[in-house]
Amino acid sequence: MIAGIETGGTKVLCALAGTADPGAVVQAVRIDTTTPGETLGKVRAFLAEHAAGGLEAVGLAAFGPVEVDRRSPRYGTVGATPKPGWRDTDLLAGLGLRGTPAAVVTDVTGAAVGEHRHGAGRGVRDLAYVTVGTGVGAGFLVDGRPLSDRAHPEAGHLLVRRHPDDPYPGGCPFHGDCLEGLAAGPAVAARWGRPAWDLGADRAQAVELGAWYVAQLLAAVTLTVAPERIVLGGGVARTPGLLEAVRPRLAQLVAGALGEHPCMDPGSGYVVPPALGDDSGVRGALALAQDLVRGAGAPARTTDA
Amino acid sequence: MIAGIETGGTKVLCALAGTADPGAVVQAVRIDTTTPGETLGKVRAFLAEHAAGGLEAVGLAAFGPVEVDRRSPRYGTVGATPKPGWRDTDLLAGLGLRGTPAAVVTDVTGAAVGEHRHGAGRGVRDLAYVTVGTGVGAGFLVDGRPLSDRAHPEAGHLLVRRHPDDPYPGGCPFHGDCLEGLAAGPAVAARWGRPAWDLGADRAQAVELGAWYVAQLLAAVTLTVAPERIVLGGGVARTPGLLEAVRPRLAQLVAGALGEHPCMDPGSGYVVPPALGDDSGVRGALALAQDLVRGAGAPARTTDA
Repeated sequence: MIAGIETGGTKVLCALAGTADPGAVVQAVRIDTTTPGETLGKVRAFLAEHAAGGLEAVGLAAFGPVEVDRRSPRYGTVGATPKPGWRDTDLLAGLGLRGTPAAVVTDVTGAAVGEHRHGAGRGVRDLAYVTVGTGVGAGFLVDGRPLSDRAHPEAGHLLVRRHPDDPYPGGCPFHGDCLEGLAAGPAVAARWGRPAWDLGADRAQAVELGAWYVAQLLAAVTLTVAPERIVLGGGVARTPGLLEAVRPRLAQLVAGALGEHPCMDPGSGYVVPPALGDDSGVRGALALAQDLVRGAGAPARTTDA
Repeated sequence: MIAGIETGGTKVLCALAGTADPGAVVQAVRIDTTTPGETLGKVRAFLAEHAAGGLEAVGLAAFGPVEVDRRSPRYGTVGATPKPGWRDTDLLAGLGLRGTPAAVVTDVTGAAVGEHRHGAGRGVRDLAYVTVGTGVGAGFLVDGRPLSDRAHPEAGHLLVRRHPDDPYPGGCPFHGDCLEGLAAGPAVAARWGRPAWDLGADRAQAVELGAWYVAQLLAAVTLTVAPERIVLGGGVARTPGLLEAVRPRLAQLVAGALGEHPCMDPGSGYVVPPALGDDSGVRGALALAQDLVRGAGAPARTTDA
């Protein structure tokens, strides 16, 4: 038996599967994220009940910052998160899985893996998963594997060019009007006084602003990491019309720099919604656990450093 | 014998070395870049004279866009460059090296490899090389190897936030005031009426503007690709005081997003000048040729796609 666990800011998803076919989930649970002790204790209880014989491997996609360098003694430990009580939480210890082979990635990297194996990223080698929700983040796969097993990128804090008709000053505690401060869920709610799913008559302008900002991240990702496809997920990204507005804005931003790159054609399928809904991360975590069992989880690239 | 060749916009560098120690260059030449026929013909003549027995392998770091996907029939062929006459030039054929094992990368990726093996990037696994010169570009290594063997990133075209005191409209033919349009050599020359190395009394303001723009690329790179170190090269980057002004500006832009990341300390050595001067690219090309001979040149990462 293997487990995939996604620890999110509002909920934890845990799924169990056989090693042979991790796509076939045999048990799953959703647990509200409260304190580390209570939350992780409930996951532990779930594992004790449904995987009493122990786990062969676990994949963990965690909200961050989280230590993802398996050479670090803090592997799987939460860093300086603003989430009360979670800083310095050793997730693997809290789950009772310190002795179990574990693959720890960021939540967005886990989502990228899930969409790559089972969802909207099938068939490409280099994939980006961008989420615009409570926060903004990005995870990257190169040749089907996480770009880095060392670093925890924070693409959401990209400095963006402000929309000329946006009076909102930005809500990021670090930067004010970085991308996350202007485009994440809390910014949308603060700008309009209502959440993204309830914008009413303001929706057209909200879509215009959202597309303006999100396209800048997608352009930056396209010009640096250069994926073959971008999956755009997250609650804000589900605002009706947003994805469709992002695509031509991205083409406008890249214009010419990459020749006839698929990002230049809004209908090319370069930017797509996730196929797994809320399950991208937990499905990715399961896939990473399977890789560990199959022996494909260790970094295969060599280094001369 | 192996060869490293860097085809640049103004000059081509070619170096020959034995396979055992590619750091020991036995012959080298610098050729002005003119037409493809003349330029590549001179390189071919150099190879015929000094490597008459043929080459075991060649590394090619080319100005772009160039096809770097070895699965493509256009591998090593120049794409839609604005450089007159070079579009669709098959570099390997022009060099008479179509049958020789070849590693083709972009010029900036080649520079990253060179600095990683022999220069300012030694000792780290994940390295970025950013050049600010006639153009702006970036190359990335992950675990000591090029991030992508498929894509040709164009990080220079990042959309940046304009400096409030910069009246220059930007000179990029595609985007006007993208990073390259505001910070590359031609933009500096157009803004001040003089090249970067001859700014006189305008230098302080030029450094302020240059650091403002270049730091935005370094922040974007840090927040997405997340290297352990950035080598900042290129002619404009050599403007006295620029590197020193970039470091605190980068810290200001990242502020908080990455905790105690080395980019937050201007003295940490996170952003460093190249150690190999103009030879980063050709030395990197040689190193890639050596990898081919040693059998380490093929992608080692597996894919499930």
